Amino acid sequence: MTARRVVAFGGGHGLSASLRALRHCAPELDLDITAVVTVGDDGGSSGRLRAERGGLPPGDLRQALVALAGDHPATRRSAGLFQHRFAAAPADAPGSAARATGGPDGGAGKAAAGADGLAGHAVGNLVLCGLMELLGDPVAALEHAGAMLGAVGRVLPMSREPVGIEARVRGADPAAPDEVRTVRGQHQVAVTTGRVESLRLSPTAPAACAEALAAIGAADWLIFGPGSWYTSVLPHLLVPQLADAIVSSPARRLVTLNLAAEKETLGLSVADHLAALHWYLPELKVDLVLADAKAVGDPEPVERAAESLGARLVLAPVAVIDGTPRHDPAALGAALVPVLGADR
Amino acid sequence: MTARRVVAFGGGHGLSASLRALRHCAPELDLDITAVVTVGDDGGSSGRLRAERGGLPPGDLRQALVALAGDHPATRRSAGLFQHRFAAAPADAPGSAARATGGPDGGAGKAAAGADGLAGHAVGNLVLCGLMELLGDPVAALEHAGAMLGAVGRVLPMSREPVGIEARVRGADPAAPDEVRTVRGQHQVAVTTGRVESLRLSPTAPAACAEALAAIGAADWLIFGPGSWYTSVLPHLLVPQLADAIVSSPARRLVTLNLAAEKETLGLSVADHLAALHWYLPELKVDLVLADAKAVGDPEPVERAAESLGARLVLAPVAVIDGTPRHDPAALGAALVPVLGADR
Repeated sequence: MTARRVVAFGGGHGLSASLRALRHCAPELDLDITAVVTVGDDGGSSGRLRAERGGLPPGDLRQALVALAGDHPATRRSAGLFQHRFAAAPADAPGSAARATGGPDGGAGKAAAGADGLAGHAVGNLVLCGLMELLGDPVAALEHAGAMLGAVGRVLPMSREPVGIEARVRGADPAAPDEVRTVRGQHQVAVTTGRVESLRLSPTAPAACAEALAAIGAADWLIFGPGSWYTSVLPHLLVPQLADAIVSSPARRLVTLNLAAEKETLGLSVADHLAALHWYLPELKVDLVLADAKAVGDPEPVERAAESLGARLVLAPVAVIDGTPRHDPAALGAALVPVLGADR
Repeated sequence: MTARRVVAFGGGHGLSASLRALRHCAPELDLDITAVVTVGDDGGSSGRLRAERGGLPPGDLRQALVALAGDHPATRRSAGLFQHRFAAAPADAPGSAARATGGPDGGAGKAAAGADGLAGHAVGNLVLCGLMELLGDPVAALEHAGAMLGAVGRVLPMSREPVGIEARVRGADPAAPDEVRTVRGQHQVAVTTGRVESLRLSPTAPAACAEALAAIGAADWLIFGPGSWYTSVLPHLLVPQLADAIVSSPARRLVTLNLAAEKETLGLSVADHLAALHWYLPELKVDLVLADAKAVGDPEPVERAAESLGARLVLAPVAVIDGTPRHDPAALGAALVPVLGADR
């Protein structure tokens, strides 16, 4: 039996949950996993590195690598290192103290304690940033970082160049609920509480990563979601070359729905999430939609929305049992086994 | 045959040369290599991290790890990553440009381009700093970093706490050649052109790393130098517990002399280097002194100085052939084979 080649699209926590679930069924199904990751982040550590060094924002790539890290204690520890975030510099460090008291400018001393340039950066972001500088290519950098973590799969960026995410948002300003404004940047779009009316990338047609196109063309399954719909799931469909590859791939296609709406999708029903896929890529045909029965509630509108994409709805208990709206990797993996393992 | 246990003392480039030479003879002699590294650095990337985060300065530890990195292409590449130093942030990065033109304060924009807090840091220094924070112990951090690099030996700090290096220096100010001043900090001592009259650590008696004491007690050979004599070689002898362990170890002792005087040892003859070992640790007995014939010139005073430590002088061509005063690892390794391989 040859391996089943699975390509998972997304970014951040949603993609991480998807990859962890795929790992749970990887041994049983002999999966060959590729993650294709958004490169639009402009917040936090990733945003600072992107703004100051000009390369791909590393955070979402790091999360995907860590989700695929090997089970050996040494690679688990390296994964912990990648996730370790430098805290504010301790105020009692010898240098900070000297600066806080010795400088001619009291304000500079205060700034030095707690803000030494490392604070807030995840070590893995700095490693990826260094590898991209050293090797001159993000795909080579990700391949090496994957080897450092003993990753059981491959992580690719959707594009070798960072992209911007922009949205036209109604009611971005709560004081003007009917006004439509342009909101720029993944972070701002992700936290807007207005209603996203349209989404685009900047540049509008970035070149897709060639290795990602090849993986899509050779895949048995393409998996979309879970994740922040506008900022992690839909961006891939807005890259023209990726959209073409997705539509023309012989692979079957699965959409895993979210368990709860996020800020950016407040007001969007579960069925609306599926409608958004159709809106941004009308040619997209989907084989299966996987959702949690409790999160769906009345399945009928979701079934109809799935059918409009050509898909059958599969309900399974995939949430963690503590009631928070997070996917349980083992449960999601168990739900994926019969789906991905089924013959065509 | 059991492995020969070798402990090499030093810091920086000198220790790196010693470790690379030991690697050359490791297969033939079945060497078990431990490096015990100074923790006094207060300059550059290490100095900034030490001042701002309070842990051990990582640079000398990183250099020793990289010198021991495995030969597999993946571990060689990781070693290259550890050595990669972040350049000044590119001025044309999108964020830098925005800051340089968009900020209310023109000076802030100028400061942002080229000084984002990462500039000048070696990636390996940040990895070590992160591991020390994450694991809470420098020895555990070095063990993991060694595993990441497939290191063929172990790297230990001489102490778990950073130390200061202070010297009384005659003529530190060239305008006052007879004045004796206290020069504080490894970096300042290393670059002084005055004559170092006495050296001490701050605190004066730091606790030695327990694992280093154990390695010294179990060693077959202890190797001192090459390296910056005052700032990389002598500091170990000033840690009372290390000095006791070195003196009472059943191991044989080898001193590898430098090829040329450095700033801090201008005016010191080759024989003076050996006399300094005796001055700072009078109980130290040495078995062999290894030196380059060309660097020594007239061997007679060096032989006498070696004899006063109880040692025999061995001359061998150990410099690179281009005439610069650097040890050639292969040549130094070839010279070490008969020395370390000889029966007692």
